[in-house]
Amino acid sequence: MPLMMNREVFVTCAVTGAGATQDRSPHVPRSPRQIAESAIDAAKAGAAIVHCHVRDPETGAPSRDLALYRELTDRIRDAQVDVVLNLTAGIGGDIVFGGVERPLPAVAGTDLIGATDRVAHIAACLPEMCTLDCGTMNFAESDYVMTNTPGMLQAMGRMMTALGVKPEIEAFDTGHLWYAKQLVKDGVLDSPALVQLCMGVPWGAPDDLNTFLAMVNNVPEDWTFSAFGLGRSQMPYVAASVLAGGNVRVGLEDNLMLERGVLATNAQLVERAVGIVENLGAKVIGPDAVRQKLGLTKRAPVAA
Amino acid sequence: MPLMMNREVFVTCAVTGAGATQDRSPHVPRSPRQIAESAIDAAKAGAAIVHCHVRDPETGAPSRDLALYRELTDRIRDAQVDVVLNLTAGIGGDIVFGGVERPLPAVAGTDLIGATDRVAHIAACLPEMCTLDCGTMNFAESDYVMTNTPGMLQAMGRMMTALGVKPEIEAFDTGHLWYAKQLVKDGVLDSPALVQLCMGVPWGAPDDLNTFLAMVNNVPEDWTFSAFGLGRSQMPYVAASVLAGGNVRVGLEDNLMLERGVLATNAQLVERAVGIVENLGAKVIGPDAVRQKLGLTKRAPVAA
Amino acid sequence: MPLMMNREVFVTCAVTGAGATQDRSPHVPRSPRQIAESAIDAAKAGAAIVHCHVRDPETGAPSRDLALYRELTDRIRDAQVDVVLNLTAGIGGDIVFGGVERPLPAVAGTDLIGATDRVAHIAACLPEMCTLDCGTMNFAESDYVMTNTPGMLQAMGRMMTALGVKPEIEAFDTGHLWYAKQLVKDGVLDSPALVQLCMGVPWGAPDDLNTFLAMVNNVPEDWTFSAFGLGRSQMPYVAASVLAGGNVRVGLEDNLMLERGVLATNAQLVERAVGIVENLGAKVIGPDAVRQKLGLTKRAPVAA
Amino acid sequence: MPLMMNREVFVTCAVTGAGATQDRSPHVPRSPRQIAESAIDAAKAGAAIVHCHVRDPETGAPSRDLALYRELTDRIRDAQVDVVLNLTAGIGGDIVFGGVERPLPAVAGTDLIGATDRVAHIAACLPEMCTLDCGTMNFAESDYVMTNTPGMLQAMGRMMTALGVKPEIEAFDTGHLWYAKQLVKDGVLDSPALVQLCMGVPWGAPDDLNTFLAMVNNVPEDWTFSAFGLGRSQMPYVAASVLAGGNVRVGLEDNLMLERGVLATNAQLVERAVGIVENLGAKVIGPDAVRQKLGLTKRAPVAA
Ligand SMILES: [Zn+2]
Ligand SMILES: [Zn+2]
Ligand SMILES: [Zn+2]
Ligand SMILES: [Zn+2]
Repeated sequence: MPLMMNREVFVTCAVTGAGATQDRSPHVPRSPRQIAESAIDAAKAGAAIVHCHVRDPETGAPSRDLALYRELTDRIRDAQVDVVLNLTAGIGGDIVFGGVERPLPAVAGTDLIGATDRVAHIAACLPEMCTLDCGTMNFAESDYVMTNTPGMLQAMGRMMTALGVKPEIEAFDTGHLWYAKQLVKDGVLDSPALVQLCMGVPWGAPDDLNTFLAMVNNVPEDWTFSAFGLGRSQMPYVAASVLAGGNVRVGLEDNLMLERGVLATNAQLVERAVGIVENLGAKVIGPDAVRQKLGLTKRAPVAA
Repeated sequence: MPLMMNREVFVTCAVTGAGATQDRSPHVPRSPRQIAESAIDAAKAGAAIVHCHVRDPETGAPSRDLALYRELTDRIRDAQVDVVLNLTAGIGGDIVFGGVERPLPAVAGTDLIGATDRVAHIAACLPEMCTLDCGTMNFAESDYVMTNTPGMLQAMGRMMTALGVKPEIEAFDTGHLWYAKQLVKDGVLDSPALVQLCMGVPWGAPDDLNTFLAMVNNVPEDWTFSAFGLGRSQMPYVAASVLAGGNVRVGLEDNLMLERGVLATNAQLVERAVGIVENLGAKVIGPDAVRQKLGLTKRAPVAA
Repeated sequence: MPLMMNREVFVTCAVTGAGATQDRSPHVPRSPRQIAESAIDAAKAGAAIVHCHVRDPETGAPSRDLALYRELTDRIRDAQVDVVLNLTAGIGGDIVFGGVERPLPAVAGTDLIGATDRVAHIAACLPEMCTLDCGTMNFAESDYVMTNTPGMLQAMGRMMTALGVKPEIEAFDTGHLWYAKQLVKDGVLDSPALVQLCMGVPWGAPDDLNTFLAMVNNVPEDWTFSAFGLGRSQMPYVAASVLAGGNVRVGLEDNLMLERGVLATNAQLVERAVGIVENLGAKVIGPDAVRQKLGLTKRAPVAA
Repeated sequence: MPLMMNREVFVTCAVTGAGATQDRSPHVPRSPRQIAESAIDAAKAGAAIVHCHVRDPETGAPSRDLALYRELTDRIRDAQVDVVLNLTAGIGGDIVFGGVERPLPAVAGTDLIGATDRVAHIAACLPEMCTLDCGTMNFAESDYVMTNTPGMLQAMGRMMTALGVKPEIEAFDTGHLWYAKQLVKDGVLDSPALVQLCMGVPWGAPDDLNTFLAMVNNVPEDWTFSAFGLGRSQMPYVAASVLAGGNVRVGLEDNLMLERGVLATNAQLVERAVGIVENLGAKVIGPDAVRQKLGLTKRAPVAA
């Protein structure tokens, strides 16, 4: 079988995450205005989709303040540059246990809220897409767990489907992808679905190619997938995903560096990704082509 | 490269688990006496290792009563038939959230205890081996999470190493195996380690062969591995693991049926596994060969 | 994705090959009568298909004498036991070069004949199936090449299709499978096709599981496949193929030993394969089920 | 396991092949002068190794005229720009059969010569490296076979080893790589060896990633590998090989196009490959680093 690389690739820019990165690079945007500007610069550089969190404009700490989401959404929708908006729904699934000898009750840092609250900003802003972290796992730190139970995923998934917002399923390990297929089988999510393969996030799936291909081989034929790696695996995964038939995600949420010693902007990361995609002989597609491919409808500004 | 199947295979029998299976088959043992007898029958049928939980002798509900573990340990050590004892350390990592709209506080069913408590029976009984579930994940049910944070794994792992009890790392997904390697790198666990690849447990790694081989390809050369599947994938995984260079686990913890409509005993499942292993042209090795391979020392009965 | 093992498996017995094995085991049948008897014993033991070559009844040397094929075919068709007949069409593709300093002209041992001659016995006997070795490669010995050019494969394939005899495509390496798909694309062979993955034949594809799965992943969804290994990999490959979704082939063509030091009969090898298949929880299907699956029509004896 | 990409990559430029491409692009060099100039331009663009055939300066037809090889070698050695020279030893293994009804004797187009003749130009020119096509297979055309028997490979391999010229083993399918390991095991080739994985050459290994990774997984740890794809898979395979831990080959032997409708020069192809490698975050190494890595000694010009 010939190499089945993707020849029409969309690029997602993950503009700012929820990580404690805001003090490690001046390019990590904090306020809605900064996030929107960085997102639009990324769009100009070739990103068809911008995936956004919001942060406290002062401290840069991750936030789930509805007003910040609204402002961000309006700023992006009002911009001259067209781009598909993807808001995170990953916030509110944090539990931090009280140490190894007395795990419960959960301690400071815990932010584990109900399904309705977790999608409140999605309902309010109606972005074209939002993320759905499709499982529970240890996530880097000692006593922290990223928590998304099957019950929670069913509830959130149904809400997203009812709102007409396309979920981008985030699969951090092979079992998350398996459950994503169950969500479609259960009618919670529409088929064909869209999945982001999140490679090399400790302690999910490692980013070696054997593991990556095992995951790709398990994505249903008619789904669309994208993939990303972290840090200095970000650009390698641009190539890996295209070669394996997928789309790509880059941005400051996953990687701060353009190269050793050089802090990147979102636009620079997108620009580099576009260069790789084009040098592989593929075409980078824009927001309208993405909407058509994924069946999305562009929304008017919230205020409208 | 020629097929690198394992030609000297050990069989673990997982005698009775913590699942609500005790009323689904009369062969699921409950009391320490029943568990020991079923374990010894399994050893007679060819199991070199017996992996045991304890249950309330009356109700069959999973238990972590120290006296039950002690009685079980003594009964197995006193038996005429030699076998390596592997006690679970998986109990005490259960959290059940309070529904999708109000996850916290955790509700009935939660049993999330400290590291010292989780290995108390290991310290008391000093089995030759014990399990270490190497991650956190959604585990079948709606609001339930199997919880083993990095901090907890570090703490439990250090205790096991200090006690001289060999951990059998249980990897339910690719990220668990990745973290197991980190535990060895951190000096928490001795190298070479022993890992059990737990395939097809919802919502961990699915049991398709691509995923399985990706995991096997990530097991360090000098480690020993075993693998198992659930239900009607139990016997197929006996073959799959041997073919991939590993050892096998069968037993009522993972599967109740000998064939469609026929409830199995542990001894019957072991006997069938041994038949498959031998028909593939491999040899089934006994407890002494396992001790030598894994560097275990046989212990005297607890009471001694 | 759950393990997609094959739960309805057919067993092919490769009764006697063209290898110089006739003096290494008294069980390798030579005359048409012996071959038919061994084939029928294999069928009684559970083989749905018998794949046969003919040999000189005296010396045991491989032969392509039409009379021998006819006698064999009649004996099998006349037998009380039903079985699908698969005759080799692999004979007549042998070239032996004249040493490394003067390769041409080809020397003794060369038997490179035209397409019409290579399928003459197929046309005469009209077996339900025949083999089609789908490529050219070094085959074990120093100056020998198994020769089946694209042109030859097109010609032979068209003849088989016209005769209504189902080709069993033999793929000895990944490129042979690729060309098999080209033959179907070119309309030479009917779709869905049937392919035998021949693993570990020097110097074709090695029989490690990574290579095997890469080949299985390249078999079109709607095709039927079988696989085999050689020597002591024969029984392991029974399991490997079933686990990967395929059917199995055993027999004296590929392996002479039942176990270390014990020469096997065809029936014993089939019996052992059946045991493995059934212990994995799959069912062994008979000749009628195979005919239905592959769209074959049972033929009357040649003489009729 | 983290992504084990190669972070110090060498680029080989395959300057001009033996294919009938000379009339399809004006950039395919014919005379030794043209080939040397194109090779040196490729070296300037970043190629550490140039792999060269020679052609009839007038017609562009492939040639094995010693004088042409000598002239080419001298021109490259005399150049101001340093580069490792790799001459083909693939010529002289061609057999064209006489059609499907009468394959023998071989017909026009056949050029099947002895081992000594096949390496005569290697002995005369003593390039730092030369290729060794490690098997026999159908190669695109109807009645043509690329012929390199085990005996021939043993003979040629021993000659190369005795000459101190490093063979670049060309593996066109999984069985070729298997036999390469046998050549090392037999002491014919020195270990660690160097292998070029030739992906997607009909009818060898297809260039899908599953097949590619199966091959990479079979390259011994301590060997060095490179890989290439054909036509529009050339640049994708630059990325694929680096990601999988290997080095890269581009050039007009394998691909004539820079992009749809734009004919490429060798230097342009190298430049694009270098761009991909660097954008992935790896470093392109030069001829001296390659010599050190592979244990090569730079030779003086032939005439010297
Ligand atoms: Zn995010
Ligand atoms: Zn257990
Ligand atoms: Zn045969
Ligand atoms: Zn070449």
